[in-house]
Amino acid sequence: MVLLNAVPVITFLSDYGLSDDFVGVCHGVMARICPSAVVIDLSHGVPRGDVRAGALMLSGALPYSPVGVHLAVVDPGVGSERRAIALATADGRRLVGPDNGLLWPAAERAGGVLEAVDIGRSRFALQPVSATFHGRDIFSPVAARLAAGAALAEVGSAVEPGSLAALELTRARLEDGVLVAHAVYVDAFGNVQLDADEVAFALGQPVHVATVDGVSARARYGRTFADVAAGELLVYEDSSRRLAVAVNQGSAAERLGLAVGDELRVSSR
Amino acid sequence: MVLLNAVPVITFLSDYGLSDDFVGVCHGVMARICPSAVVIDLSHGVPRGDVRAGALMLSGALPYSPVGVHLAVVDPGVGSERRAIALATADGRRLVGPDNGLLWPAAERAGGVLEAVDIGRSRFALQPVSATFHGRDIFSPVAARLAAGAALAEVGSAVEPGSLAALELTRARLEDGVLVAHAVYVDAFGNVQLDADEVAFALGQPVHVATVDGVSARARYGRTFADVAAGELLVYEDSSRRLAVAVNQGSAAERLGLAVGDELRVSSR
Amino acid sequence: MVLLNAVPVITFLSDYGLSDDFVGVCHGVMARICPSAVVIDLSHGVPRGDVRAGALMLSGALPYSPVGVHLAVVDPGVGSERRAIALATADGRRLVGPDNGLLWPAAERAGGVLEAVDIGRSRFALQPVSATFHGRDIFSPVAARLAAGAALAEVGSAVEPGSLAALELTRARLEDGVLVAHAVYVDAFGNVQLDADEVAFALGQPVHVATVDGVSARARYGRTFADVAAGELLVYEDSSRRLAVAVNQGSAAERLGLAVGDELRVSSR
Repeated sequence: MVLLNAVPVITFLSDYGLSDDFVGVCHGVMARICPSAVVIDLSHGVPRGDVRAGALMLSGALPYSPVGVHLAVVDPGVGSERRAIALATADGRRLVGPDNGLLWPAAERAGGVLEAVDIGRSRFALQPVSATFHGRDIFSPVAARLAAGAALAEVGSAVEPGSLAALELTRARLEDGVLVAHAVYVDAFGNVQLDADEVAFALGQPVHVATVDGVSARARYGRTFADVAAGELLVYEDSSRRLAVAVNQGSAAERLGLAVGDELRVSSR
Repeated sequence: MVLLNAVPVITFLSDYGLSDDFVGVCHGVMARICPSAVVIDLSHGVPRGDVRAGALMLSGALPYSPVGVHLAVVDPGVGSERRAIALATADGRRLVGPDNGLLWPAAERAGGVLEAVDIGRSRFALQPVSATFHGRDIFSPVAARLAAGAALAEVGSAVEPGSLAALELTRARLEDGVLVAHAVYVDAFGNVQLDADEVAFALGQPVHVATVDGVSARARYGRTFADVAAGELLVYEDSSRRLAVAVNQGSAAERLGLAVGDELRVSSR
Repeated sequence: MVLLNAVPVITFLSDYGLSDDFVGVCHGVMARICPSAVVIDLSHGVPRGDVRAGALMLSGALPYSPVGVHLAVVDPGVGSERRAIALATADGRRLVGPDNGLLWPAAERAGGVLEAVDIGRSRFALQPVSATFHGRDIFSPVAARLAAGAALAEVGSAVEPGSLAALELTRARLEDGVLVAHAVYVDAFGNVQLDADEVAFALGQPVHVATVDGVSARARYGRTFADVAAGELLVYEDSSRRLAVAVNQGSAAERLGLAVGDELRVSSR
């Protein structure tokens, strides 16, 4: 149910944080080029340089965003040989960012890439292009030009969609009735999202979780935090429809000593 | 002096923080439904699950906001039996959030509730409604529909205003000439707001503050931070016209070991 | 290449942080007065009360922002005798903030001050003006009135541009072939900007850095983070075209124990 609107929309995701002016300067650059665009900050709290976390956040947020231009910058290789790209997806979105896999899951979810251009030498880049802030000098001006109506072919030179960097993602597996999953995201509340999409626990069922570090705990499979007492462990399907672990009014990441990438075993007893 | 404007305004307050994409996704949802709305982020830094802090912040900020739709989400009981509501106030505002007292002080300050609806099963909710992210699935779409012109009766089913959850707030009292107050808010600077509205200290007067933990200190009653030397304690009427304690270029919360809810005794000697 | 636009733009920079509602309330005040304005948050993460850091951030960000009204509040002397001012610069910008040097480098960079007014008793201030929150009561309403079309003379009383507070800034110097510089900004990544604009190192050249605390390390002069291995020190020209020190995928501030104001000696061996 996307309502078409005359207002161009740019969403913006990065690992810049909000304590410096990196995000504000990019907003300034976009406002100079396309003053009528509405810029929605999806988040600038992606852990620094964590392309995978940024990619998952982007692909999860896009279905809730208006169709528009989607700018994403998590770019540990800025200034190196990695390409800067802009894409058109099958569902009509345009994605702009570094070609390091950051855009890949979102593009897949948006029906795949129809067309891609290398914008590293875009005629719309701000000159001189700095070596360390392509968000300001390349990505923001190109995103704003697209929002203002430029065609993809105008902002860069064509590249083969098949040559774009992909991202390898882990997937949970079943081993003798035990779900062997991995932490893929820890939110600010300490809720831990796992790489499992479908789970066959029953509501209210006791489950058991164990980390490779030997932390082992009893939990309950439920729908929401209040389904367990304050301080107790909950296993649940989160709002992205992935299996997750939480502590009601507490932090599951802290309780279990879990960080992104860590393995967690979940069993029904 | 509210200037009427054609642009619909939504204010948005939550305890989501800005490191994840919760806030950004809600913005996306609202932009899809009401692209012309201006969304003002009042704050997303309410301490996690602290309904009282969120309620005080909302009621303090509303008089400075355009009349519009006011979305607030501090919702430790998300997915449980607590109701989700939308209200119309006597001064023409619409408030949207959980029925846990969060909206109550703001509604009182806005002249009281004229009409209320339960939006837990709103036809405008995003389906399927998740158990843990009603900000995205219920509150944001309803707020955006109201901003786009929907009547309250269209977004939910009527409930009795008298049945809404209220919030009990502490109030300072005088005891033998000593003001016995409580910390109600600690800002990022460490300034501590108390639950006292009217105080009879004279400008420049020395005062004495004491905590129940035995911390005791001399302060001065003044107008602004610079009225005391750097590092010294100031008691003053803050910008919300409540009594507060600060340290010039320092943190009163740290100096006095004060947290929200703690008692503080203030006397004129 | 500033595209003229009918949409009034206000940029907003402060040390308010985002955990409280200070920034949100100022947005509310501005939206009530000038609902059509686009407000761009340059940053609210200026270290508390650090006028120098705020001034450098503002002057660095302004060239990337649309010409408009530029509100800045880093105001440790709020409520004291320091003036509140609004300025018009030679390049058509209007700057609003405290007269404590915060606006000075930006005004210089914008071609100098053509006209200035004292807005401490502006008829557009919100009454009663609090002693501690001039951002809400004086600066925001005046900025919004200017964005809505008011002339500078309408919002305050004329003051002599030459009487405005300036800011003394350090500058690196050469001493026997050693560059003696000072840290002027540390960003969230731990990259340390120095007060040196022009440097004569060759790309790839090994350099040596030393602090007054006796920390001494080898680095390499390069263009971007990826020019050195992960964990190694890079000396480079940053995106503001100033000399800076970074650690690839790490924090130079931490590695070298550097804080703003500290001296750093950089030599070619």
